[in-house]
Amino acid sequence: MLSNLADSLYEELIDIRRHLHMHPELSFQEEKTPQYIADYLTALGIEVETGVGGRGVVGRMIKDPDLPTLAIRADFDALPIQDEKEVPYQSTVPGVMHACGHDAHTAVLLITAKILSEHREQLNGNVVFIHQHAEEVDPGGAIQMVADNCLRGVDAIIGQHVSSSIPVGTVGYRYGTVTGIPDDFWITLQGKGGHAAHPDTTLDPVAAGIRLCNDLQYIVSRKTNPTTPAVLSITMFQAGDQTNVIPDTAKIGGTIRTFDTATQQHMIDELKKCLDGLVTTTGVTYDLKYLKGYPPVVNTKNETDLIISAAEKIDSVESLVEIEPALGGEDFSYYLERVPGAFFYTGTKNEHLKADFPHHHPKFDIDEKGMLNAVKIFLQATEDFFEGGVR
Amino acid sequence: MLSNLADSLYEELIDIRRHLHMHPELSFQEEKTPQYIADYLTALGIEVETGVGGRGVVGRMIKDPDLPTLAIRADFDALPIQDEKEVPYQSTVPGVMHACGHDAHTAVLLITAKILSEHREQLNGNVVFIHQHAEEVDPGGAIQMVADNCLRGVDAIIGQHVSSSIPVGTVGYRYGTVTGIPDDFWITLQGKGGHAAHPDTTLDPVAAGIRLCNDLQYIVSRKTNPTTPAVLSITMFQAGDQTNVIPDTAKIGGTIRTFDTATQQHMIDELKKCLDGLVTTTGVTYDLKYLKGYPPVVNTKNETDLIISAAEKIDSVESLVEIEPALGGEDFSYYLERVPGAFFYTGTKNEHLKADFPHHHPKFDIDEKGMLNAVKIFLQATEDFFEGGVR
Amino acid sequence: MLSNLADSLYEELIDIRRHLHMHPELSFQEEKTPQYIADYLTALGIEVETGVGGRGVVGRMIKDPDLPTLAIRADFDALPIQDEKEVPYQSTVPGVMHACGHDAHTAVLLITAKILSEHREQLNGNVVFIHQHAEEVDPGGAIQMVADNCLRGVDAIIGQHVSSSIPVGTVGYRYGTVTGIPDDFWITLQGKGGHAAHPDTTLDPVAAGIRLCNDLQYIVSRKTNPTTPAVLSITMFQAGDQTNVIPDTAKIGGTIRTFDTATQQHMIDELKKCLDGLVTTTGVTYDLKYLKGYPPVVNTKNETDLIISAAEKIDSVESLVEIEPALGGEDFSYYLERVPGAFFYTGTKNEHLKADFPHHHPKFDIDEKGMLNAVKIFLQATEDFFEGGVR
Amino acid sequence: MLSNLADSLYEELIDIRRHLHMHPELSFQEEKTPQYIADYLTALGIEVETGVGGRGVVGRMIKDPDLPTLAIRADFDALPIQDEKEVPYQSTVPGVMHACGHDAHTAVLLITAKILSEHREQLNGNVVFIHQHAEEVDPGGAIQMVADNCLRGVDAIIGQHVSSSIPVGTVGYRYGTVTGIPDDFWITLQGKGGHAAHPDTTLDPVAAGIRLCNDLQYIVSRKTNPTTPAVLSITMFQAGDQTNVIPDTAKIGGTIRTFDTATQQHMIDELKKCLDGLVTTTGVTYDLKYLKGYPPVVNTKNETDLIISAAEKIDSVESLVEIEPALGGEDFSYYLERVPGAFFYTGTKNEHLKADFPHHHPKFDIDEKGMLNAVKIFLQATEDFFEGGVR
Repeated sequence: MLSNLADSLYEELIDIRRHLHMHPELSFQEEKTPQYIADYLTALGIEVETGVGGRGVVGRMIKDPDLPTLAIRADFDALPIQDEKEVPYQSTVPGVMHACGHDAHTAVLLITAKILSEHREQLNGNVVFIHQHAEEVDPGGAIQMVADNCLRGVDAIIGQHVSSSIPVGTVGYRYGTVTGIPDDFWITLQGKGGHAAHPDTTLDPVAAGIRLCNDLQYIVSRKTNPTTPAVLSITMFQAGDQTNVIPDTAKIGGTIRTFDTATQQHMIDELKKCLDGLVTTTGVTYDLKYLKGYPPVVNTKNETDLIISAAEKIDSVESLVEIEPALGGEDFSYYLERVPGAFFYTGTKNEHLKADFPHHHPKFDIDEKGMLNAVKIFLQATEDFFEGGVR
Repeated sequence: MLSNLADSLYEELIDIRRHLHMHPELSFQEEKTPQYIADYLTALGIEVETGVGGRGVVGRMIKDPDLPTLAIRADFDALPIQDEKEVPYQSTVPGVMHACGHDAHTAVLLITAKILSEHREQLNGNVVFIHQHAEEVDPGGAIQMVADNCLRGVDAIIGQHVSSSIPVGTVGYRYGTVTGIPDDFWITLQGKGGHAAHPDTTLDPVAAGIRLCNDLQYIVSRKTNPTTPAVLSITMFQAGDQTNVIPDTAKIGGTIRTFDTATQQHMIDELKKCLDGLVTTTGVTYDLKYLKGYPPVVNTKNETDLIISAAEKIDSVESLVEIEPALGGEDFSYYLERVPGAFFYTGTKNEHLKADFPHHHPKFDIDEKGMLNAVKIFLQATEDFFEGGVR
Repeated sequence: MLSNLADSLYEELIDIRRHLHMHPELSFQEEKTPQYIADYLTALGIEVETGVGGRGVVGRMIKDPDLPTLAIRADFDALPIQDEKEVPYQSTVPGVMHACGHDAHTAVLLITAKILSEHREQLNGNVVFIHQHAEEVDPGGAIQMVADNCLRGVDAIIGQHVSSSIPVGTVGYRYGTVTGIPDDFWITLQGKGGHAAHPDTTLDPVAAGIRLCNDLQYIVSRKTNPTTPAVLSITMFQAGDQTNVIPDTAKIGGTIRTFDTATQQHMIDELKKCLDGLVTTTGVTYDLKYLKGYPPVVNTKNETDLIISAAEKIDSVESLVEIEPALGGEDFSYYLERVPGAFFYTGTKNEHLKADFPHHHPKFDIDEKGMLNAVKIFLQATEDFFEGGVR
Repeated sequence: MLSNLADSLYEELIDIRRHLHMHPELSFQEEKTPQYIADYLTALGIEVETGVGGRGVVGRMIKDPDLPTLAIRADFDALPIQDEKEVPYQSTVPGVMHACGHDAHTAVLLITAKILSEHREQLNGNVVFIHQHAEEVDPGGAIQMVADNCLRGVDAIIGQHVSSSIPVGTVGYRYGTVTGIPDDFWITLQGKGGHAAHPDTTLDPVAAGIRLCNDLQYIVSRKTNPTTPAVLSITMFQAGDQTNVIPDTAKIGGTIRTFDTATQQHMIDELKKCLDGLVTTTGVTYDLKYLKGYPPVVNTKNETDLIISAAEKIDSVESLVEIEPALGGEDFSYYLERVPGAFFYTGTKNEHLKADFPHHHPKFDIDEKGMLNAVKIFLQATEDFFEGGVR
């Protein structure tokens, strides 16, 4: 069992993760990170392609094209968030932070590649290491990398995400749908500003924005099927910069999250009804930019079984739980549109280490021990896949 | 009648105003403007004090301390607004603009000073020209200039404001209260951010801010006496910068405007009740910074009569109207706390010239002919005051 | 001074008021009250007309048509409110109550008539006693009584209202506008009901009603001139009667109050915009019934002077205050459209007697001493009017 | 197969249903309906108990206590809704209506009893017919009938509900949780009323109610896990009855629906937070009456298999679909707390017959053909159960 070899590389695993954590790069602006990955894989003697689909890096360890080929994927972009953790490995880039764990994903895959490459002789198959850029920002790197043919020859794909809501030692799996459709929207309300003492002489876009945002709550609370998950989050409201001037515009942004396209379209329709009603009532006008998100990640049965079976063989995986689908988006779905596969969640929550802030929080952190479990499951699943999976 | 001399200086009046319009300076940051004023007054042979109360400029034309002394005041600061007019005299400073007419106030007072200084021999009194900085931003320049003794020896004070809601040719007056108490507030709502797909794991400050701003409407609509004017304008809402991240905080700012301190305090109390209720309901916490505004401008009877009488003598003042009090603030009130005086409004509205945008609007402009009326009234009122007013 | 005679009739004044208080009758349904009034006036030897304009009663004490003629008016209808006072003179009619003081108005006018009739010989003029039905409910009795020619021969008219916000001993007057335009509206929102567990399968009229009522707040808070009084009160919301059934309709009612027809129309327009926007946003439809209210009461100068002068002569009137206009409606305005006149307010507030609940409150009551002041002012003003008023 | 005998009794099935439809009785007030049922069962020669748990009727067809015993349950109460259908069998009771299909449930069970009783010799088991009162209103009849020992000797129980959202010919089943926890709440907001023109002198309970109801939307939209179903419906808002009087109180009622007690308690906590915040903000006080609803119906595996297997054998059941759990409540859960069992849904939707209004709608109706399917499944499941189920 190759998975037994992971523990001895734990220190390097941490070093890689912390190095990446200190040097985060925003989606579609990654430069040093893909270079770092390419250098690492090259040093392992793995054939490397860079600039795949833009900024992706693919390591191809092909022993025999006739043997089964498994792809393993990790994403490597960071978020425009100011790191507020007080730790030695705090981000060195102002306003940019690995607040979602992609640093860990990358470290896990590099160490997995190291062990697999050092034992490639004993493997009965080929492995493709897909290091993806830009998972956080639509349209995402996956669709581009797939278009750039990164899946050529691949029979199945696996991937994982660390999770701050799953305790370290636990692994989460799910058959079928595991992630949602994460749409984004940006609305500009155009009013007519003026003196704050005379609101009646203006078309107040701030007041209109407040009414809109209040109205939007009713879409989830009254207009969608209660048993069909749906989220509408307003995350941005930008208007005005002085107390005595009513501004001309208000900018509002957020996200709509669903699991199916019917609910997605229904919510878009309702959003537009709220906007159109607002125009009638208040006289402001609007500009709506709406970006439909990634498709849902839908795990296939055999590959989910593969992950479960592998996880059950790992001693340090104390618990294996079926998780609920979550409304976060994940462009792993684009790979699954082409090949079967499974995406699982590795617990990294540990309140004693303050590793229990939600993802995308300025104090997000992980219990690094969780990374070891991810490496071991990747190693075990690879071995099992080449032996015919769990079938 | 000195007022007959104003027409011949109309071109210079315009030149001064446009020069100032092209070079606006923010409150408490004025440097070139006071220098320009001081140079102009000095060239007229008027004794000049600079740095009065910070950045104010005072010209003192004292003929005999035993004679009556009239002060005339103009303010000279600009606003942090981007000039959107397409005119040759557009502001040359990005993001800064004379959107309230203080450029015109200054030009009017300089030309008034020019005519009075050229005929000082025939005046039976002394004139103090008060050029004030920082009217737009609390605590304002007036309180500082008064503290710096700019009113020494002054028996009464007059001042004026151009008005984009009064047609050119018309002058507005009012006995008693003419302006309101313009308070400002800044609220920071502290929640706990997180992933936009999981609002229930956060304390969403954007949603809390929306509820607060919606709640605040009820203060004016239900909680204040309908016959007692009161305004609560939310002019700023700043929260979040990404669609998929619920931020930690939302910043909300605005103004409360009233005419009396009882209503002012009532509204402050209600604002706090809304905030305290929000904490109970949502769990977010808040920080409130509240800055009470200038006192109301309360015109005295004799000096208001002086202005009315002077205006009636000016041919180009076609109409003299009693105006309603307005909720804009004006720190002319600090002078009136020390000496009697009157503040009036000079019509500069002219839709044919697009001079009908509200004050503080990016396209605010004036019909410059209105400035002439202001000069003439200042001249006439000065003459009349020295002859014993209208008594 | 006839006013000195009032004190001796105080007991009868109270008896009449309490009798009427115990037997209130709703607007346009008055039967016993006008009969009571007619009987009383007839017993005084005054010529009485009944059924004037429907249910009004007019007493005409005409000495000589060539002499000046003063009308004095009192209204006598009650409200559909359950009397919750625990007093011996509590209403005996379930759900009906003199919660606005019209019982007192009537008693005051009857005692005034008694004294005047007993001294008619010494009066240099004619008096018309106008007892009006249906002041509380549009279209009101005044317009009908005027149409029925109740003002024939009348030179001027006076009237008064008791006030629970003015202390007993104080009388309130005002030149010009004293009351507002009280419009009423009734809205039916038509949705599509259904099971409360499945809101998305319904067009929920309750949720739509909540949104509408919330939206309506913005009309006063953001859409009207802050220095122009305006009220929009939602006083009725009727929807549903079971917890598990979303109803088909919601019924919402209330009042819009203004002092001028421009603001009135502006608010009606904004109300309709809110309704039209609601249709766009939610899909419910609406039916709006809108009833424009009485015109404002606008006191004429001479007659207001008459009241002030009379009040100043009354010892028990300790204080005479200029009041703010109030947004309550009063169909005394219809008389003033025909003849000059004045309407004043007699203080009846006394917290020690629990006579400080607002008008229209189930515990509304008066300090009956206030009635005496009203009688005295009527008597004095009548005498003065016949002597040429205060001119 | 006994199920083949049902078609011949279709006419009687319709007659019974329509008779009951024309004579609906409210929950806990049923008198004629249980008498009708008892008479029918008695005429079949079945031993009948009446007044079970209050108003329930139980028919016991016990062949041999040692043989397996199956209970079949139908509820028979109606709703306080005015029947708006124009059909010959329209409700004859004003304001009362079988708007949920319990008339059909009862007819189905009576015809089932008729066929089973006529063929009791060939049955290898005992049948208990549970006709339950008061399913619509907490605490419901089931808990009382169970307490009254109606399940003595019973090994398993089955039941069904007609469904206006499932096409006739289709039957819906589900393993595990099928219904939610339907809590009810009633809130009285206590303010202080007054004149509608002076809102600031009152504590307006209508405005407070609007704010509350608006606030409550945020519980579902922001405060609950989007993947955990939850409903909060406000179905009642009762306040005021005149346009010019702000009332003292507003009464608000509705329902909270969840599938698990953790979410239930979370929503109750959030409801209270909204109320407590409202008190702080507005000054009104509240009285909350909260009634926790029935537990969820959780079908057991074997009995669900029994239903599926039976349905598959019925020709007129064209389609068998797994349904989503729904947030309606159903006190069938109390039986399932004692014995295993299954609850299924029989399609009665048919838009051509206008049988597609939602349950609890004034025009709710069924395609009566659906009843036949329910009878057949009951018959088949009974036979199968006695032969050892589908095990």
